[in-house]
Amino acid sequence: MLPFPLRQSLSIFRSFSPAASTTVATMKLLYPTSLALDSAKITGFPTLTLHAYDAKSPTLPSEHHDAHVLVTWANSKDNLKYAVENLNNLKWIQSLAAGPNDVLSAGFDASKVKITTGSGLHDKTVAEHALGLLLNAARRFYEMRDYQLQGKWPGHLGGPQPDREKGTFRTLRDARVTIWGFGNIAKSLAPHLLSLGASVKGLARSKGVRDGIEVFGEESLEEVLKETDALVMILPGDASTKHALNKERLAYLPKHAWVVNVGRGTSVDEDALFDALEEERIGGAALDVFETEPLPEGNKLYGAQNLILSPHAAGGRPQGAEELIVENLRKFLGGQELKNII
Amino acid sequence: MLPFPLRQSLSIFRSFSPAASTTVATMKLLYPTSLALDSAKITGFPTLTLHAYDAKSPTLPSEHHDAHVLVTWANSKDNLKYAVENLNNLKWIQSLAAGPNDVLSAGFDASKVKITTGSGLHDKTVAEHALGLLLNAARRFYEMRDYQLQGKWPGHLGGPQPDREKGTFRTLRDARVTIWGFGNIAKSLAPHLLSLGASVKGLARSKGVRDGIEVFGEESLEEVLKETDALVMILPGDASTKHALNKERLAYLPKHAWVVNVGRGTSVDEDALFDALEEERIGGAALDVFETEPLPEGNKLYGAQNLILSPHAAGGRPQGAEELIVENLRKFLGGQELKNII
Ligand SMILES: NC(=O)c1ccc[n+]([C@@H]2O[C@H](COP(=O)([O-])OP(=O)(O)OC[C@H]3O[C@@H](n4cnc5c(N)ncnc54)[C@H](OP(=O)(O)O)[C@@H]3O)[C@@H](O)[C@H]2O)c1
Ligand SMILES: NC(=O)c1ccc[n+]([C@@H]2O[C@H](COP(=O)([O-])OP(=O)(O)OC[C@H]3O[C@@H](n4cnc5c(N)ncnc54)[C@H](OP(=O)(O)O)[C@@H]3O)[C@@H](O)[C@H]2O)c1
Repeated sequence: MLPFPLRQSLSIFRSFSPAASTTVATMKLLYPTSLALDSAKITGFPTLTLHAYDAKSPTLPSEHHDAHVLVTWANSKDNLKYAVENLNNLKWIQSLAAGPNDVLSAGFDASKVKITTGSGLHDKTVAEHALGLLLNAARRFYEMRDYQLQGKWPGHLGGPQPDREKGTFRTLRDARVTIWGFGNIAKSLAPHLLSLGASVKGLARSKGVRDGIEVFGEESLEEVLKETDALVMILPGDASTKHALNKERLAYLPKHAWVVNVGRGTSVDEDALFDALEEERIGGAALDVFETEPLPEGNKLYGAQNLILSPHAAGGRPQGAEELIVENLRKFLGGQELKNII
Repeated sequence: MLPFPLRQSLSIFRSFSPAASTTVATMKLLYPTSLALDSAKITGFPTLTLHAYDAKSPTLPSEHHDAHVLVTWANSKDNLKYAVENLNNLKWIQSLAAGPNDVLSAGFDASKVKITTGSGLHDKTVAEHALGLLLNAARRFYEMRDYQLQGKWPGHLGGPQPDREKGTFRTLRDARVTIWGFGNIAKSLAPHLLSLGASVKGLARSKGVRDGIEVFGEESLEEVLKETDALVMILPGDASTKHALNKERLAYLPKHAWVVNVGRGTSVDEDALFDALEEERIGGAALDVFETEPLPEGNKLYGAQNLILSPHAAGGRPQGAEELIVENLRKFLGGQELKNII
């Protein structure tokens, strides 16, 4: 008799492969060469065959049109469109990106194909980048650079300095940092901020204490923003977060407060932000994401005062993709709910 | 009868104030207004009087020429010279700077006046800055800035990126960081690096495990530098560290390695560093300290490839100065060895 998980898997396969009732069905997984995935780590699935594919190619080899599982990472639009039209056996797409945006806009339908994201694979990299942007802002590295490029010593930024002056953001020590969107990435970022001496609050849909951090709901937004020296936005890019930071809410922030956005560009009203920067109603902004990416040449944000631009560089390197694939393969074959399913 | 510490203090005062044997001697401490020192925290010394003074003034008020203790911070050269010539009762100088360089070069003589430094007051601020410089280097914020100033999107630094490629320094995660000069500041920095996933080694005069970090002596220098992705220098600026990082030792570093210096400029041979940068024999350098400060206009380092310039901005804000002063006052009056005595 077959061991329990395999029996379950067979019952799943039966639904799309009649052969499964007589021989052990094989399952075909395609993984992209757009990252260095260690396929040798994907073990323990005797019925599984693994096949590498080029995620930048406008097509997929015809011998793989029968694939059941597609792992995606940095696929070209053409490639995903081709997959939608040609992978007729596809049961499940495992994206390694934090969100499903590219898969959905290519035309995959979550009611027909299971779609799971790579949420959690980018926590450490995005947290590191957000920390770097916060320190860049507080320590004024961007301004030092401007002086250096002109061959000038930025003396006003060095030497003896006032210590934790009220109404400034010059260090994380004793700074009040608010993280808006308190999910996986925020939980990875918060300990670094705490250990540098910051006090950290969260904002999310539902309130409560998470990982020891007090997280507030929308009803406390005004009150929390008013007590913020640095606002770190890590919101997803869906309809509910569109222009979450708008003119009215920018006005709640103290004059010296910085805005850091490593979530999605759509969550910030860029026109309102530009005005707030130029009129010095906030201290500055460090943006890794934009409403349109790449930020078009000639866009006024390039030259906005105290704006730090980063080209969607926070994540971009999934960590532990193999472990997520293996966990979801187990769940898939076991007929259980997949991790990060949308 | 007087309580024990006071008796001790009297015995000390007797040595410079004959009045002490009959009445309780008062002791005069001058503290600078160049930082916001909370003199109300300096309590519990009934014989002590506290007087604020202007550390930038070329003189000191004549009624304070009888001061016994001088606290210094960001004093002008003139002011310190004036103190050498006029404070004839001075027994002890408490500097709040990490090192005694300014006090010594003004002409104070450690064999005649006790000199104590503010070592330990700058650990957290310098550690934070060093962390920021490391992230600036790894995440290429300086290069992003150059593109931004030209109105261009630095696309090659964003989007999907290779993960922890060998022979690169693009993240602290799994990076091999070596801290050369493993004292107070290093001990404050190391935990932040570890929690970001770096592996940390130390280099110092004597080897051994400190705060859980393996610290190597000079005999292991070559071997350790060869295995370094980022070298953080936090050496003091004395004769023993002059050009510690010279041409020969720069050559031990891997081609992609970064050098961060937050100690003293004299510990790096700047000509050798410049050549290594321009010839791409190292990955880059982030310098907060220079052989001559301010770095003179026209100095070739301003334009060196992959050089990040910071204007001696790491420290400059003593933390906990009052506590150090109080501890040393207790020790001084108790006739004990002072903390941070040189
Ligand atoms: N810059 C980059 O390179 C990069 C890389 C990876 C990811 N990202 C972005 O970062 C986002 C967050 O990632 P994550 O893994 O931390 O996501 P996550 O774990 O799903 O957390 C999302 C958080 O946002 C909150 N949220 C969602 N909609 C909200 C709304 N309308 N109002 C208030 N809060 C709302 C959620 O609140 P509840 O907890 O109350 O539900 C949750 O706390 C991703 O969606 C992606 O867009 C960017
Ligand atoms: N950039 C700034 O704004 C700023 C601010 C504050 C301080 N600093 C600088 O940072 C320096 C270090 O501060 P700290 O408080 O960490 O000092 P510390 O506690 O005295 O530590 C100094 C370390 O350097 C090592 N060392 C000294 N001479 C050496 C040599 N010739 N070869 C190898 N190692 C040597 C010592 O080794 P052992 O432990 O084996 O004795 C010790 O580990 C200060 O002296 C100051 O110049 C800069």
